[in-house]
Amino acid sequence: MTENLQFELTVQDGNSRARCGRISIGGRSLQTPAFAPVATRAAVKGLLPSQLIECGVEFLLANAYHLQLAPGAELIAGQGGLHDFMGWHGIILTDSGGYQVFSLSDINEITDGGVEFRNPRDGSKMFMGPQEAVKIQERLGSDIAMVFDECPPCPCSKKKAGRAVDRTLRWAQECKETHSRENQALFGIVQGGTYEDLRSRCAQELVGMGFDGYAIGGVSVGEDEELRNRAVEMTAPLLPEGRPRYLMGVGFPPDIINAIGEGIDMFDCVAPTRMGRNATAFTRSGRLRIRNSVFKKDPAPLEEDCNCLACTLYSRAYLHHLFRTREMLGPVLLSIHNISFYQNLLSGARKAIAENGFDEYRGLFLENYCNC
Amino acid sequence: MTENLQFELTVQDGNSRARCGRISIGGRSLQTPAFAPVATRAAVKGLLPSQLIECGVEFLLANAYHLQLAPGAELIAGQGGLHDFMGWHGIILTDSGGYQVFSLSDINEITDGGVEFRNPRDGSKMFMGPQEAVKIQERLGSDIAMVFDECPPCPCSKKKAGRAVDRTLRWAQECKETHSRENQALFGIVQGGTYEDLRSRCAQELVGMGFDGYAIGGVSVGEDEELRNRAVEMTAPLLPEGRPRYLMGVGFPPDIINAIGEGIDMFDCVAPTRMGRNATAFTRSGRLRIRNSVFKKDPAPLEEDCNCLACTLYSRAYLHHLFRTREMLGPVLLSIHNISFYQNLLSGARKAIAENGFDEYRGLFLENYCNC
Repeated sequence: MTENLQFELTVQDGNSRARCGRISIGGRSLQTPAFAPVATRAAVKGLLPSQLIECGVEFLLANAYHLQLAPGAELIAGQGGLHDFMGWHGIILTDSGGYQVFSLSDINEITDGGVEFRNPRDGSKMFMGPQEAVKIQERLGSDIAMVFDECPPCPCSKKKAGRAVDRTLRWAQECKETHSRENQALFGIVQGGTYEDLRSRCAQELVGMGFDGYAIGGVSVGEDEELRNRAVEMTAPLLPEGRPRYLMGVGFPPDIINAIGEGIDMFDCVAPTRMGRNATAFTRSGRLRIRNSVFKKDPAPLEEDCNCLACTLYSRAYLHHLFRTREMLGPVLLSIHNISFYQNLLSGARKAIAENGFDEYRGLFLENYCNC
Repeated sequence: MTENLQFELTVQDGNSRARCGRISIGGRSLQTPAFAPVATRAAVKGLLPSQLIECGVEFLLANAYHLQLAPGAELIAGQGGLHDFMGWHGIILTDSGGYQVFSLSDINEITDGGVEFRNPRDGSKMFMGPQEAVKIQERLGSDIAMVFDECPPCPCSKKKAGRAVDRTLRWAQECKETHSRENQALFGIVQGGTYEDLRSRCAQELVGMGFDGYAIGGVSVGEDEELRNRAVEMTAPLLPEGRPRYLMGVGFPPDIINAIGEGIDMFDCVAPTRMGRNATAFTRSGRLRIRNSVFKKDPAPLEEDCNCLACTLYSRAYLHHLFRTREMLGPVLLSIHNISFYQNLLSGARKAIAENGFDEYRGLFLENYCNC
């Protein structure tokens, strides 16, 4: 296998599995552990690339399924590929559409060959199997492509979870055989729900096939926090040390901090932007709902020593006013703050790992965040 | 009268009434002719102050009536005033609420003492007369305050227009007597509809009272282009050379270019942002509706040699995609382009005036803009 992606492990924390590294691919690079804001349709809602860079963002997640629906991978390829199209020249990871098998499952028909999606807009049908998923991502030209997987919801019977693992493995193999684009990595995805033996089998077989990196899928699909943490704890050690580990769709700050302690390197989640649009700010002492009337006259920034643009320029009183009067700038500013918060959380973790103090960092963060 | 505002006329065009100048007040300054994007509720929809500065913006318009409704002038004063509150440190002009007498007239009761506004949200009542309008603007701490005026719609009988002029003059006098804030200018507003003798009487009496600047009100209220131009042509020469002239609520690019030729110095309009949010871009060859499917695969920028962020980074195909998928970034980017377009139009006019070539500039602009 040619190595499309270089992963250099730079530091290993002494008291946990946490680690720092650097991913390089096609001239682009990324410090890990890293968090990706979500740009499903080739845009982080309301934010410009330069604003994301100011927040410290190094990579974004886009979605092959949604981009195939509109404007189409062919069109994007014709415009010079996804990076040029969306003006983002950092690393882009594309999810294949596997998650949509789950999230849109009431309108989809799943067979061993793939999934027939019904376009929610016009009812038209689109078929996506492992080959289609890879070809679409190759056309998009993302830096990291994901295999097409089946991601069942939780709770899920062992029989159903096992069948999803079988399909996911068969599809992973097909994706690997189809994939040929240079300077594009392909990651495998471990499924298996909450079943340790299924997760273990899935991980082992994927590692046997050999991917550029490995994702833990099927979390944040309805399970509680304990099951989620358990799935990460059981799966992470099954993945090779020398390859990046990506926890898909996770999550809230405590989940991320815990997963870093288990040796996870990459994260993505809609939380910072979606919560921001809905007037919720993340702070080190928990969430803050800016529409609450206690903030009406509050001259303080969202968070005292935050270096983001929203905190540097504006009071809680102003942000409260923006949301109360439905001004677009409110969602923009809270998205900027929340993305900065996530990036600061991750850069703090990297620093703590480098200083062999991740355990303390995690303890302090969780104490402040969860006890208010 | 103490002079709150300095207006230095720097160049007078030789073939038209067009002129260049500089307004200075309280340490802030502004090159004229100038255009203000609208920040009714202390925010230009979706844009940060730094983005406005990048577009070349030097002043903004906010609205005393809307800000009194939410969050209240008292609250803003308590937060250090409007500049600090909204993070904009260029010149801010506040409209008094007079225009709302017109635009919300079905829910207002107008008497000689002022206007009882009904809050469209909760039905509560708010009284605003000349004294209230001045005090609110003093609390807000804008650089330029406007008198409270009555702005009747068009068409309007001469009798009604005359009554509005009487009220406007009485209210202007009261505003002037009430106003006491240092480093805040107060502008009078000429009403009189489409009636030359009314406009003339209103202008003369206002000039007799002595204001820091003079606005032409009651345009863009339903009249056609010819009547609008006529109102500007007849009113501008009645206003003193040495004071800034402000054409309120105007307008589209041709209106602005024509009014500059009549010696107008200041403009504001919601057009660049409102049209931008509605997927319409201004270009030198007219308007461009980016949702139109002809742009689906168009790799060109909105406008070939535009230096704005939207044109530097993105294709029409991407902008089309953003609007078709209802991404917030679409309205943000088209607002940036349109504001840049207006600022470039004005800076081009200033340059042409300085080179004694405004007539040619106007001719070329109108030929390109209107004939496609």
